[in-house]
Amino acid sequence: MKGVVLSLAPAANLVDISHGVPPQDVAAGAVALAQAAPLFPAGTIHVAVVDPGVGGARADLLVEAGGSFFVGPDNGVLSLAARADRRIYRIEAPAFRREPVSPTFHGRDIFAPTAGRLAAGAPASEAGPLLPSMVELAPPVVSRRASEVEGRVIHVDAFGNLITSLGSEHVPPDASIEVEGAGGVFHPVLGRTFSDVATGALVAYLGSGGQLEIARRNGSAAAHVGAERGARVRVGAPT
Amino acid sequence: MKGVVLSLAPAANLVDISHGVPPQDVAAGAVALAQAAPLFPAGTIHVAVVDPGVGGARADLLVEAGGSFFVGPDNGVLSLAARADRRIYRIEAPAFRREPVSPTFHGRDIFAPTAGRLAAGAPASEAGPLLPSMVELAPPVVSRRASEVEGRVIHVDAFGNLITSLGSEHVPPDASIEVEGAGGVFHPVLGRTFSDVATGALVAYLGSGGQLEIARRNGSAAAHVGAERGARVRVGAPT
Amino acid sequence: MKGVVLSLAPAANLVDISHGVPPQDVAAGAVALAQAAPLFPAGTIHVAVVDPGVGGARADLLVEAGGSFFVGPDNGVLSLAARADRRIYRIEAPAFRREPVSPTFHGRDIFAPTAGRLAAGAPASEAGPLLPSMVELAPPVVSRRASEVEGRVIHVDAFGNLITSLGSEHVPPDASIEVEGAGGVFHPVLGRTFSDVATGALVAYLGSGGQLEIARRNGSAAAHVGAERGARVRVGAPT
Repeated sequence: MKGVVLSLAPAANLVDISHGVPPQDVAAGAVALAQAAPLFPAGTIHVAVVDPGVGGARADLLVEAGGSFFVGPDNGVLSLAARADRRIYRIEAPAFRREPVSPTFHGRDIFAPTAGRLAAGAPASEAGPLLPSMVELAPPVVSRRASEVEGRVIHVDAFGNLITSLGSEHVPPDASIEVEGAGGVFHPVLGRTFSDVATGALVAYLGSGGQLEIARRNGSAAAHVGAERGARVRVGAPT
Repeated sequence: MKGVVLSLAPAANLVDISHGVPPQDVAAGAVALAQAAPLFPAGTIHVAVVDPGVGGARADLLVEAGGSFFVGPDNGVLSLAARADRRIYRIEAPAFRREPVSPTFHGRDIFAPTAGRLAAGAPASEAGPLLPSMVELAPPVVSRRASEVEGRVIHVDAFGNLITSLGSEHVPPDASIEVEGAGGVFHPVLGRTFSDVATGALVAYLGSGGQLEIARRNGSAAAHVGAERGARVRVGAPT
Repeated sequence: MKGVVLSLAPAANLVDISHGVPPQDVAAGAVALAQAAPLFPAGTIHVAVVDPGVGGARADLLVEAGGSFFVGPDNGVLSLAARADRRIYRIEAPAFRREPVSPTFHGRDIFAPTAGRLAAGAPASEAGPLLPSMVELAPPVVSRRASEVEGRVIHVDAFGNLITSLGSEHVPPDASIEVEGAGGVFHPVLGRTFSDVATGALVAYLGSGGQLEIARRNGSAAAHVGAERGARVRVGAPT
């Protein structure tokens, strides 16, 4: 993919964001992209190819959002990063593809050529027709009551930390936190960092990506709670 | 290695191709390089250091082929990528080495300086004497009969896909495919992609690198067939 | 982190040194940095964030040494690379931080902004006050007698090689080498490379980073010797 980009845009500055996204883990890729993208300069072209459905029927997307560009499959991997003021294009123009397109390597034959064309100055609108919507990962809030908001674990990272779908807007100071796993219902202390709790204790905090996360000091929150992706997380009013 | 290159050629644009080649796996490195190199602009300098024999007697090579450059040990790792119109130089000139050369780190002391010198404009012919040949990986076709061509599995990737030595020129449309492993003889369907077969079925297809590959939908072809590197793969006339 | 650097210094050339440092392994990071840094051009800005204590009380450092810059936490990770003529600054200036600083991601909010400011031309002295010292990893020589120098294994690499705290200045030609582990006391042959010994034998040699290393040909020295980090290594006069 890098070779294809450089062939079209020799002066492009290529940057790898992460080597830690597990194969075919769309949610992990979406979280990594959403955490990294806002930190790059406006106009950056982000390419994300976590693509278990390659060769099937999903669309190939170029999304312009917030002054930057997002290129990848229509499976939700772009949906956490490309949220605001977005224009969604389906990549169809021959100049944005490398023919013949391999059925198993759209990264090389569709997404890299699209990134290369953009880097060389082509307008996004030339990629193909506008689409009205794209696939979204689960919305952050699953249910909401007067005194409680419920979300989900959307990702378990390599340390066993639980990244949730809830953001700072859902977490008032001194909120009570509840997470439910195979091991039962747990109540992490809401803190700022690992150092706020004793070894072995659970802590909830707003992670560096702006989402509520749950960790266990010197251990794995996922193992302790018995929580996988999809586990329920509730934030209640301060008690 | 990157520091050595940048010290000699500060404006060099360094690109990592893969972090997935297992240590000391020359064939995996050769396949990765052969798949990536043709996609880079002409004049690119490719460095490949999969080098279990470092410290032994193998030569250090700079190969000019197809308008690009390939730098690495003479153990076959360059042989799939650098095929056409090639000129093979043995790296010997002091300006292309970093003295004293460590017996265990030729990447840093020979291959990186050679890449840096080339990037800074030195001609390849100054690296050292021309060699008449270099070590080749197994030739793609092992045996050929009127109605059949036999090759080998040359690499098993991280998903259990079998990459074979046979290329598109050996695979007519509607060919019959046969692969032989510890689990018996199997006949994958020749298709275009995973989606062409049912879950659990074997499919053969021309991979993104141009080689015949055998995969199992939602599973590992290597485990199912009991095939390792060296396994026999036969392509027969359409039946 | 890369996004933050590029936002401040769009022309910066970002280079990854290693993807092989285990999480939270400060000594492994310090060794990798010490091996790589001297090979980069003067003026390079090295960022190393192996940081198990993030969120705690350790300082954030910018060290100027030997004409280059080292940015990271004050836990020893910089101490092997930044040795000579060093000036140690505590990063405190608002322009070198990204507010609000996340308690769990100093890489993004302190070290990357510092690197970006430096890359954009800011002088190191603007980062904050000078400090008189920083945390050091164990000194190379633990004890010394007339006929013997004793050091420690400071790192076990992914191949089971033992990297020691002793350097070439401690290893005369034909020295006798002794390493002590759970499996007993062993006497590797002092050689130049793996090829100097038979399969299964231990060899000691000056590694590519300039340190005495102990390896087992076609095997793991760590497993054979039963040695972990901290194991004793002695170099005696030639016998």
